[in-house]
Amino acid sequence: MAERINLNADIGEGFGLYAIGNDEAIMEIVKSVNVACGMHAGDPTVMHEAVLKAKERGVSVGAHPGFNDLWGFGRRRIDMSTTDLEYLVAYQIGALAGIAAYGGLKVTHVKPHGALHNMAAVNDDYALAIGRGIKAVDRDLVYLALAGSAMERAAVELGLPLAREAFIDRAYGDDGNLLSRKVAGAVITDPRVAAERCVQMVATGEIVSASGRRLPTKFDSLGVHGDEPTALAVARACRDALDAAGIAVVTLPEMLR
Amino acid sequence: MAERINLNADIGEGFGLYAIGNDEAIMEIVKSVNVACGMHAGDPTVMHEAVLKAKERGVSVGAHPGFNDLWGFGRRRIDMSTTDLEYLVAYQIGALAGIAAYGGLKVTHVKPHGALHNMAAVNDDYALAIGRGIKAVDRDLVYLALAGSAMERAAVELGLPLAREAFIDRAYGDDGNLLSRKVAGAVITDPRVAAERCVQMVATGEIVSASGRRLPTKFDSLGVHGDEPTALAVARACRDALDAAGIAVVTLPEMLR
Amino acid sequence: MAERINLNADIGEGFGLYAIGNDEAIMEIVKSVNVACGMHAGDPTVMHEAVLKAKERGVSVGAHPGFNDLWGFGRRRIDMSTTDLEYLVAYQIGALAGIAAYGGLKVTHVKPHGALHNMAAVNDDYALAIGRGIKAVDRDLVYLALAGSAMERAAVELGLPLAREAFIDRAYGDDGNLLSRKVAGAVITDPRVAAERCVQMVATGEIVSASGRRLPTKFDSLGVHGDEPTALAVARACRDALDAAGIAVVTLPEMLR
Amino acid sequence: MAERINLNADIGEGFGLYAIGNDEAIMEIVKSVNVACGMHAGDPTVMHEAVLKAKERGVSVGAHPGFNDLWGFGRRRIDMSTTDLEYLVAYQIGALAGIAAYGGLKVTHVKPHGALHNMAAVNDDYALAIGRGIKAVDRDLVYLALAGSAMERAAVELGLPLAREAFIDRAYGDDGNLLSRKVAGAVITDPRVAAERCVQMVATGEIVSASGRRLPTKFDSLGVHGDEPTALAVARACRDALDAAGIAVVTLPEMLR
Repeated sequence: MAERINLNADIGEGFGLYAIGNDEAIMEIVKSVNVACGMHAGDPTVMHEAVLKAKERGVSVGAHPGFNDLWGFGRRRIDMSTTDLEYLVAYQIGALAGIAAYGGLKVTHVKPHGALHNMAAVNDDYALAIGRGIKAVDRDLVYLALAGSAMERAAVELGLPLAREAFIDRAYGDDGNLLSRKVAGAVITDPRVAAERCVQMVATGEIVSASGRRLPTKFDSLGVHGDEPTALAVARACRDALDAAGIAVVTLPEMLR
Repeated sequence: MAERINLNADIGEGFGLYAIGNDEAIMEIVKSVNVACGMHAGDPTVMHEAVLKAKERGVSVGAHPGFNDLWGFGRRRIDMSTTDLEYLVAYQIGALAGIAAYGGLKVTHVKPHGALHNMAAVNDDYALAIGRGIKAVDRDLVYLALAGSAMERAAVELGLPLAREAFIDRAYGDDGNLLSRKVAGAVITDPRVAAERCVQMVATGEIVSASGRRLPTKFDSLGVHGDEPTALAVARACRDALDAAGIAVVTLPEMLR
Repeated sequence: MAERINLNADIGEGFGLYAIGNDEAIMEIVKSVNVACGMHAGDPTVMHEAVLKAKERGVSVGAHPGFNDLWGFGRRRIDMSTTDLEYLVAYQIGALAGIAAYGGLKVTHVKPHGALHNMAAVNDDYALAIGRGIKAVDRDLVYLALAGSAMERAAVELGLPLAREAFIDRAYGDDGNLLSRKVAGAVITDPRVAAERCVQMVATGEIVSASGRRLPTKFDSLGVHGDEPTALAVARACRDALDAAGIAVVTLPEMLR
Repeated sequence: MAERINLNADIGEGFGLYAIGNDEAIMEIVKSVNVACGMHAGDPTVMHEAVLKAKERGVSVGAHPGFNDLWGFGRRRIDMSTTDLEYLVAYQIGALAGIAAYGGLKVTHVKPHGALHNMAAVNDDYALAIGRGIKAVDRDLVYLALAGSAMERAAVELGLPLAREAFIDRAYGDDGNLLSRKVAGAVITDPRVAAERCVQMVATGEIVSASGRRLPTKFDSLGVHGDEPTALAVARACRDALDAAGIAVVTLPEMLR
């Protein structure tokens, strides 16, 4: 039985006067955060606040690069050249590193956001471009990649430190892929169901698909959402259940040590 | 007599399909470049290209942070809070550092751009906010500050490495301040005049004001412009004259060593 | 005694996923709205929604142009050329007119936003540039101008329809200017105080300054805020008091008829 | 034999300090221009200048809406919701109408730009969304649509005035579609070849495909490019050949009269 696991979530997605999300609450639950870097969301002041909060709570900080598309919140697919994408990723990691220097923090992982994440999960060119951007900035940065995705393959191919991610509030198909959000039951909203499932996943190293199939899966981190009240309740219940089961929730660097 | 001097210029100020300036030509003349960081100009791909060219030519790389105002090319004064400004500067330095990591380069100095430069020259709050942003990211970064300005005072107060800058193509008043561009003769456009003046400045450590007064001034770097054909000709003539006079033109780190 | 008055408020200030303000509630209170036009806030979809809601409720629609500064929400002073400013205003009015065409609505007034409003209140060049932008698009558009400001003078000079505005939740000095928000008591937050004051202002045509002085003032519209719970309560109380006093709250075109 | 034809080209694609294209030269050749509207390119001041130049020369003005993607110059495909797209188009048409009011000009047609154009050529949902945006603003606006494309179908379905476009500097396949730019010979760069072809197209109402097949095609306007020296020479040669052949080059409203 696994004795520890990482939980991660996205934060710092406000912009100027615009606030969004529940950063305070989510940082009581997870041990690693993915901070928006000013392209799909976030601005230097919002990033600064996110970084200082993470430092206070002993939460590790990752970059959460997205498309430069504030109107679409990075959720619209954009066809970019892979070189533009690579440098866009390096830019965002660097920008966050500049802000993370406040309080002496280091950026320790990278997880792409929204449409960029969805494209990189299945598109090797995008997954590799992101990986090359990461590697150029710092070859010790962890590529936080959806388990079984093109991102995982890219991290392996590029020799980057890899953390595999699974989701606690999303149902899986028998093929190990996430069910589309359009499918009924694709998002798990019952905190008790999620909590039980979460502990089981960590304890067995298996994901149980929507149809009941057991899928042995390697994962180092569980992705959590905090942008809606139900998602936050699910995340809170999972954390409590992990604590109760004696499973240590640790930062990503501790997890990979 | 001074045996060496630094020359610096702004580069990397294109954006997407838009090109501007004469980066190739200017990098044959100067030994340090100030690279736009994506706010008033520049994008990750443009920055990447600028950094690689600088590496090829042994030119040192500095960040050239500006207001987030692409329409105004950073030339419009914006009233920002000093905390927003500080983090905006740290963000831009970090972003360039992320891109400079390509080719293993380091960002070694920071010089603010346009309206931000003009405001920071006379406004201690702005000059200090920029300095704190620099210091947070890396306390070894050189603050490239207009000689005698609020920026110079800020660098001293914050204990940052300081390089003082004078301009070869701008006339000075008797008070040591640059004449307004609106005054006739404020911009020196004759390459021969500029070249002679440039060598004299370095050789004597004095700036001669428009009225003929000798102003002893400490400076480590001479700012050069390349955005117009005449400015480029002036810069080329100055460099040639310095070479002919046996004055070594060196990078900013070499200058401060 | 005046038998009618206009109430106006800003709406449509969200952007993409970001929501802000209480548009639904405020549109139950006022009869004219100032819709953000995509520069300091607002996007085409947010604007479309705002326009349709206004149509449903019989509320008249005005453009609320601001600086192109989403990060600063248009609250940061920017030094623009007056020609750039003029065309920026015309652009925003036109953009809203394009959206207002849904449902056959017309834009009937213009009120500048935030820092642009504050600058245009005292700077004749800015006030006139805005006025020229308005006049170029449609010389029948009402310039909604702070009573006694440079904007009022500009409207008169340009021959534009003018509506003078006073504020119900802001205290005035003896000189008829708004007290700075930094002064204690500058913002009126007690709904009962505001309601009483509001009816008195309309009934007497006088503003009572913070020190108790009576300032006879011509005004056609009262500006209301809805971005905070207390501001909304103040606005609601004022509207109720006006209704109870038998003062008709009408749209801006009705007010000027 | 046709006695007249319209020529159209894109202009006003600068931004702030950034200049691009040869607007002066192209406006001596065409009789209708598609003006960028501030999203993929263009700003209020650039638009103002473009509109005034068009007025001087008796050239009709159309809106050239694109994705809100300045970095990509509107050439990157973005997956937008069709409602967002519709309102984005209405916004841009309105914005240009606001600016066109200077000098009393009206916007008389709409042609989408870049990636939006390419997507709308084959995607009925996009083509219809653009058409609904046009119709909402002004049902007399001409939809300038690639001949045979989804845009043509959309204009017909929505009952919008339609102008069909063919290109003089692009080769066609036997199916009537443009050859991909990646295919050798896809872009016609020889002015003499283009000029001959252009007159033949207008005289016969046929496009000759790359393999020599005659494709009878209805078209009202020929699209011309001016962004490169060779393209400009091609456009100039075509105009001269049309003039020499006694074919009148007229504005789009004249063409559809």
